Amino acid sequence: MILTVTLNTALDITYRVPSLRPHASHRVSEVTERPGGKGVNVARVLAALGHQVTVTGFAGGTTGQILRERLMQVPHLTDALVPVSGTTRRTIAVVDDLSGGTTQLNEPGPTITPAEWSAFQEVYEDLLAGASAVALCGSLPPGIPVGAYAGLIRTARAAGVPALLDTSGAALRRGVAGRPDILKPNTEELAELTGSHEPLRATQDARRRGAGAVVASLGAEGLLALSPEGRWRATPPAALRGNPTGAGDSAVAGLLSGLVDNLPWPDRLTRATALAAATVLAPAAGEFDRQAYEELSGRVTVSAQVPAA
Amino acid sequence: MILTVTLNTALDITYRVPSLRPHASHRVSEVTERPGGKGVNVARVLAALGHQVTVTGFAGGTTGQILRERLMQVPHLTDALVPVSGTTRRTIAVVDDLSGGTTQLNEPGPTITPAEWSAFQEVYEDLLAGASAVALCGSLPPGIPVGAYAGLIRTARAAGVPALLDTSGAALRRGVAGRPDILKPNTEELAELTGSHEPLRATQDARRRGAGAVVASLGAEGLLALSPEGRWRATPPAALRGNPTGAGDSAVAGLLSGLVDNLPWPDRLTRATALAAATVLAPAAGEFDRQAYEELSGRVTVSAQVPAA
Repeated sequence: MILTVTLNTALDITYRVPSLRPHASHRVSEVTERPGGKGVNVARVLAALGHQVTVTGFAGGTTGQILRERLMQVPHLTDALVPVSGTTRRTIAVVDDLSGGTTQLNEPGPTITPAEWSAFQEVYEDLLAGASAVALCGSLPPGIPVGAYAGLIRTARAAGVPALLDTSGAALRRGVAGRPDILKPNTEELAELTGSHEPLRATQDARRRGAGAVVASLGAEGLLALSPEGRWRATPPAALRGNPTGAGDSAVAGLLSGLVDNLPWPDRLTRATALAAATVLAPAAGEFDRQAYEELSGRVTVSAQVPAA
Repeated sequence: MILTVTLNTALDITYRVPSLRPHASHRVSEVTERPGGKGVNVARVLAALGHQVTVTGFAGGTTGQILRERLMQVPHLTDALVPVSGTTRRTIAVVDDLSGGTTQLNEPGPTITPAEWSAFQEVYEDLLAGASAVALCGSLPPGIPVGAYAGLIRTARAAGVPALLDTSGAALRRGVAGRPDILKPNTEELAELTGSHEPLRATQDARRRGAGAVVASLGAEGLLALSPEGRWRATPPAALRGNPTGAGDSAVAGLLSGLVDNLPWPDRLTRATALAAATVLAPAAGEFDRQAYEELSGRVTVSAQVPAA
């Protein structure tokens, strides 16, 4: 079983409008709702690939209830979310029909009490006993100590479970000190962590801060990976037109899937890159196009990078 | 008891953001939720004035459940909403902290089945037996015939209950044919109904189409009323700075309150104008400031209008 942790789950709502204009009134033509938060998205992709996956983190209130009802319907996915007294946040993505652009409105998450955080840590430790890998994903809701991820990574290590970290800001800076097996920053997170906008230099720097391997997602340019076994660049076959929402989460799912399948690094990167590209191409944000994934898997280029002098 | 009908109830959500920018991501700093739809807003103001009020219309799904739980907490208000299989819509008002401007996103309402519409009509007829006045407010959800309000007005007349209509578009055009006792359009609705942008002429025209009395709400310029007893202009003491959301609903509440209290027309208009002004001045959208209402009640000017030649 692969475990994904989403401390700040969300009910992701998408609205379609002809064109969003500030201070105007809009009739929403289409409403879609789905369980969200990065770890939940990663779990859904893993489940679609046929992996047994368990989702933990927090859920509460009516939005938490809707989220759990939806998760129950996903094959291969087990809900181990910890109930909280607060209400799970909503995120609203307003998609312009005309421009295709997306305006994002994110509610703050519920405040987690110390008792709820303790309850989660017990559940997490129990779940690790049956896990082959764990992904720690997304932001921390109010009430969770900023060093939370470092502690969760140490608990995973003690249980012999490899941990992947995908977060941002202070949670990333403090989390990397816990020495995750894999760190998956995007370009902005990498720059924020290291102060460098040069991907190779920044990736090296991030690895020096404690990560076993760093896989940087560089948007349309694919992935850059630095690991004890080598360094690689993985690129999709061509520039892709579509919605990049969730592409990073699909890349995380690909890396974990390849890890638990014991694939060599270049094959893990191929899987991650093809999944991310197939997510950009899918009509619904955050879903991946299975046919495109299978077709793209044969067309990703992975090249070994020569270490810098 | 005063009855208010809201066929397209809503859960009104307000988000505060520093400044809404299309295609950007926003952290929402404050989330508030309250039961909405014009008739629900009217009922809340009537209840705050001490009237016994009953709310009917439709509610369904988790949003409908939240709406009903909130209504249960309002003193003097009775929930007689008819359950439906669809989900009550949400509306989202995104308020810019910087500019104070509001961007509105309105979900479509649930589709009402013929059986649900029949069930409503039975409930409505039963409720009229105990009602001293009825307000028919807001848009029609999908599935409701466009002439619905005309039929509901005729049922009210048969029961001897005076009916006020406050809607827009085709529902207004067709509803006025039912001969409501009072029609309460705003400037745009009046122009849409009559084709005239000249308030007095348009109000006369609207009355000729079948309304017993027409009270046009002209924003900061107050109310213009044409009734069998005369014609008046009611104006607030000064230009008011604030949020006009819900001011029209408060005016409707004032008109109904004055009607059931058997006030002469000028006093009804004073009450309606002072309530609308006190709603503009209130910090929360759609609430009214009770102290401002009492103070403004003494400062509204009502002047009789000489009939046009």
